[in-house]
Amino acid sequence: MTTKALLEQIKSKKSFLCIGLDVDLNKVPKHLLEDEDPIFAFNKAIIDATHHLCVAYKPNTAFYEAYGIMGWKALEKTISYLNERYPEIFTIADAKRGDIGNTSTMYAKAFFDDLGFDSVTVAPYMGKDSVEPFLAFKDKHTILLALTSNQGAFDFQTKAIDGLELYKQVLETSKSWENSENLMYVVGATKAEYLAEIRKIIPDAFLLVPGVGAQGGNLQEVCEHGMNSNVGLLINSSRGIIYASKNTDFAEASAQKAFELQSQMATILQEI
Amino acid sequence: MTTKALLEQIKSKKSFLCIGLDVDLNKVPKHLLEDEDPIFAFNKAIIDATHHLCVAYKPNTAFYEAYGIMGWKALEKTISYLNERYPEIFTIADAKRGDIGNTSTMYAKAFFDDLGFDSVTVAPYMGKDSVEPFLAFKDKHTILLALTSNQGAFDFQTKAIDGLELYKQVLETSKSWENSENLMYVVGATKAEYLAEIRKIIPDAFLLVPGVGAQGGNLQEVCEHGMNSNVGLLINSSRGIIYASKNTDFAEASAQKAFELQSQMATILQEI
Repeated sequence: MTTKALLEQIKSKKSFLCIGLDVDLNKVPKHLLEDEDPIFAFNKAIIDATHHLCVAYKPNTAFYEAYGIMGWKALEKTISYLNERYPEIFTIADAKRGDIGNTSTMYAKAFFDDLGFDSVTVAPYMGKDSVEPFLAFKDKHTILLALTSNQGAFDFQTKAIDGLELYKQVLETSKSWENSENLMYVVGATKAEYLAEIRKIIPDAFLLVPGVGAQGGNLQEVCEHGMNSNVGLLINSSRGIIYASKNTDFAEASAQKAFELQSQMATILQEI
Repeated sequence: MTTKALLEQIKSKKSFLCIGLDVDLNKVPKHLLEDEDPIFAFNKAIIDATHHLCVAYKPNTAFYEAYGIMGWKALEKTISYLNERYPEIFTIADAKRGDIGNTSTMYAKAFFDDLGFDSVTVAPYMGKDSVEPFLAFKDKHTILLALTSNQGAFDFQTKAIDGLELYKQVLETSKSWENSENLMYVVGATKAEYLAEIRKIIPDAFLLVPGVGAQGGNLQEVCEHGMNSNVGLLINSSRGIIYASKNTDFAEASAQKAFELQSQMATILQEI
């Protein structure tokens, strides 16, 4: 998917919401556990109830790997369902991969070609030749970890290298990589005050912003500092939406939570 | 597995060789493609032919994910086969994972509990709370990326933060993490000259050293700078061993290549 198509979807839905499909079978409604594929059944219900309110879905692969083959089947079914039923939706494999060149190519093929995701999150630690294999895929997007939403972000990411923090070095350096127009970046909502600085380095790129809601980030603040003239933001919420209810009304409850965020987004979009 | 058990295995086999099981179906002997599970058939033949010459096997998960469900089944079968048939062998899931706390816990459970690996490689970019969930598993090992074997290592890892290179910051900082005795580190053989410096920071930890052979690293040089009184090294070779032949003699050919490396290791071990 092109960023142009993503932007058109944002405008038509008045939403830049991404819903994180982080399925934990200990947290889904009990009646779903009788289903042949409870993970997919949960995802399908959430997707059918919320697809008009969001522009992206982001399964975190850890939650699927934790269930072995059953988890991978559910991931495959989920992405296939999205691509067939709601092809306008932007899909993100939150996998945080990254390896030496030929191995990164294997990961890129797995997520882009085989599974059919529009994008994948990638860790920057191994540098240029670990990321460029992902960037080589046309109309696919590589979402590079820059400044993450967790406390551990302060261990290395915010430490200064020659006067410039590591996450800024990552932003600055990555701009010179081949096909860097296919880059987006992860910036945690819990660090909204950093967004103005980040926008000076990458004014145009889309940012995937986790941490609104459960992790304490504030939507209004993120938009104030991080939005650009093409919106440039995908705001992710996972637990706050998908676990809104543990009862048979879970899908409706998730739609209600998504609607609350989408409504705030519609108001913000009117103002720009 | 405890590091004590690993060391005993090293002494008894006179080897600190790790074999990387990075199966690419374009590179395996043609006759295997007729097998119901060609990836596992290849791994089983390599393992049966080389298990007495090495102390560890390291499947890189990218190569399995690239084949979807079929790949994951083959990975499960491979680790189960190793644990049942050769329980003395140290197993490494080369997955380079790392995520926010609760998500890292999902990955740790997947690799340690469900699949039954002894260790997993983890990326440090997200800091302490992304790594400690892995460290919490008793007698399991977290192999942290420090200085990788690729060219991209020079993009960020060797850049100085307050006078100390990022990879040294990672080494130094990680020592203070809870259960840090469960840490090992990835240090590429292509950067052997850095090993003396690394040993000043982490004299006791085991190092997993990829890049000997195909990537150009030198065994003698790595041992000279990186070995400690408990050996402290696992030297990985992947392509140089497993693709020694494309014919029906591939397993014997891989054993020959492994034997060449093991013989050099036996000589080196005699000298310490």
